[in-house]
Amino acid sequence: MANVFLKRKRKKRLELGHPWVFQSEVDYIEGDVEPGDFVNVYNHQRHFLAKGYINPKSQMIVRVLTQNPNDELNAQFFMNRIRQAWAYRERMIPGVRSCRAIYGEADFLPGLIVDKYEDVLVVQILSLGMEKRKEWILQALLDVFQPKAIYLRNDVHVRELEGLKQEKGFWYGTCDTNVQIEENGVKYIVDIENGQKTGFFFDQRQNRAAIKPLITSESTVLDCFTHTGSFMLNACLYGAKHVTAVDISEHAIETAKRNAELNGFTNVDFVVANAFDYLRECVQKGKKWDVVIIDPPAFAKSAHAVPKALAGYKDINLNGLKLVKDGGFFVTASCSYHVHPDMFQAMVAEAAFDAKKILRQIHWSGAGYDHPKLLAADEGDYLKFAIYEVHSRK
Amino acid sequence: MANVFLKRKRKKRLELGHPWVFQSEVDYIEGDVEPGDFVNVYNHQRHFLAKGYINPKSQMIVRVLTQNPNDELNAQFFMNRIRQAWAYRERMIPGVRSCRAIYGEADFLPGLIVDKYEDVLVVQILSLGMEKRKEWILQALLDVFQPKAIYLRNDVHVRELEGLKQEKGFWYGTCDTNVQIEENGVKYIVDIENGQKTGFFFDQRQNRAAIKPLITSESTVLDCFTHTGSFMLNACLYGAKHVTAVDISEHAIETAKRNAELNGFTNVDFVVANAFDYLRECVQKGKKWDVVIIDPPAFAKSAHAVPKALAGYKDINLNGLKLVKDGGFFVTASCSYHVHPDMFQAMVAEAAFDAKKILRQIHWSGAGYDHPKLLAADEGDYLKFAIYEVHSRK
Repeated sequence: MANVFLKRKRKKRLELGHPWVFQSEVDYIEGDVEPGDFVNVYNHQRHFLAKGYINPKSQMIVRVLTQNPNDELNAQFFMNRIRQAWAYRERMIPGVRSCRAIYGEADFLPGLIVDKYEDVLVVQILSLGMEKRKEWILQALLDVFQPKAIYLRNDVHVRELEGLKQEKGFWYGTCDTNVQIEENGVKYIVDIENGQKTGFFFDQRQNRAAIKPLITSESTVLDCFTHTGSFMLNACLYGAKHVTAVDISEHAIETAKRNAELNGFTNVDFVVANAFDYLRECVQKGKKWDVVIIDPPAFAKSAHAVPKALAGYKDINLNGLKLVKDGGFFVTASCSYHVHPDMFQAMVAEAAFDAKKILRQIHWSGAGYDHPKLLAADEGDYLKFAIYEVHSRK
Repeated sequence: MANVFLKRKRKKRLELGHPWVFQSEVDYIEGDVEPGDFVNVYNHQRHFLAKGYINPKSQMIVRVLTQNPNDELNAQFFMNRIRQAWAYRERMIPGVRSCRAIYGEADFLPGLIVDKYEDVLVVQILSLGMEKRKEWILQALLDVFQPKAIYLRNDVHVRELEGLKQEKGFWYGTCDTNVQIEENGVKYIVDIENGQKTGFFFDQRQNRAAIKPLITSESTVLDCFTHTGSFMLNACLYGAKHVTAVDISEHAIETAKRNAELNGFTNVDFVVANAFDYLRECVQKGKKWDVVIIDPPAFAKSAHAVPKALAGYKDINLNGLKLVKDGGFFVTASCSYHVHPDMFQAMVAEAAFDAKKILRQIHWSGAGYDHPKLLAADEGDYLKFAIYEVHSRK
């Protein structure tokens, strides 16, 4: 294994538990390296810091697998890491059968994402270092999960930055690519072949459950950006009188409809519409709901895009707030990493001011247990989720 | 009712939903006011903003009761507010019998705190404006809660700033001042006469329940600042093998012991010790636990005290982290308002760096449902609660 020596003057990122080494932090490398090779990382005084894999072509030159010098990076190491990741989910979510099973850096397996849908795994391999250990990973996944099938969703741009091609298809076994799962007592059909990302967003599991006390048999609910219907379905499960589910994508609404049918929920209106326009029109028409839910996709894909994203968030939050009956509930989220929690709260406060509402915050949360985060890597702090009680101001 | 006119140049605090008017914001007052009187509040253009009560001697001259000009401030108004506060708790915490029932500003009743312990209420009246409506409040509490007894814990310094005397004793009925309650399935004896604040800290209800997945029948747990034993008791309930409960107060430990007996928990060691010293000594002795819990009282009572408080927090977090077995859990909290969430997280990150630990955050939370907060009043954002998985770094 080659040895990477870091410069004297650098932020003590690794010592803080951050799993990345940047090109600019490297002083010199002893030994030959092929892209994807395992390397040792040392500080400028030649003290051991970490072991990981290298990609000299990437700005993120080394990604750390362990800070323990005694760890051997071999098939058994990957097996142990994957076993630990699953043991953690089984501990935190008793009886879990479907969830994010491996979450890259936060499970000390940078570049590897695994979502478990009952006995089917969907895998994303995002780095060259992981790609080179595909056989070890496959063997470990088979041993730990004994899946019926494993599907690769390597159709992501970031692979090209690592010199890897995009691809998707079965990696092991075969199955119907529409997989039925259950979460919080709700059944879903997940399209692992053509759904967004790996087919389902598990990070809001606990947040979807958190709307339970808001819903009574008298509740009318508006679910904007319903995607495949997740908040709508939970609202129905918790006994809502009626739910309006809105999404711009006809395919998403078709999936949401199918999921509602699967659960026997019939009290739903489905609307294919741009949520920005739909919310504005409902305000003009003077419509009101007991509970309004806004769970949009990420508007800010970069720090540069934040001001525009915040304007977008404010627009939908402002109109969403106006649609809540006095004393009702507003449920709002953002999954843009670049929109930090304080920026998000300030945006909601501005929207409330403009909408002439006084908001009482009754719940604040982030991603669920299957999306842990390294304290040192605030990249993991992307999901904001809040519930407010809404009161009118004259 | 007299009319209070605000200056043109001021922060639009009320419009944002904040419930306080400061002396410096008042331009002039039309009409005579006695301290505690109800007043209308207008902006500089004589537009109505709010109704509240005034105390000309206080920097916080008006506290807002409503922003609705049609609300009459009378006995019925107080009855409605109190009824709404209780309806909210019953909705959010199904089957609740003991909790914070009224939380001042956050329940639109500034200066009034009511904790419910089964059929006994403990009340704090913190402002002159509320003191003057004691009869309305009493009648409403009797109507809404039908309590056996109501106990006043007006033994708080802040009353003197309002020109009120400190006092405690029964306000209505009588009962044993040791009241038995149940929370998360754990029984407690609450000393409503001599316990801290009103006798119990309800704000950590959900956080105490959040330790459940950390605990197995093999778990050893250290609970520092156990006070009357709350985290210790939850750890026992969730099946811990053994718990060590530490508090500097002999009276607290006696209460914790009594609570453990009440629940039939026998696998607890009780230690009367300064937690700072105890943690340090345990580190020196090389002791380890599967789960370490640190829930100290507020170290920073003012912004001025923050640096010293952070040093204190870091000391106990650093040593606490060293006591966690590799792969175990660290549970840490701060209830100092002046130590903001980002300061708290930075402190934990520093402690982890010094303790040579890599932390994985698996839970982040604040106060529970019975402690809502006004979005505009960040005074309500005082409780930080986190759970980390702890990994050693070589």
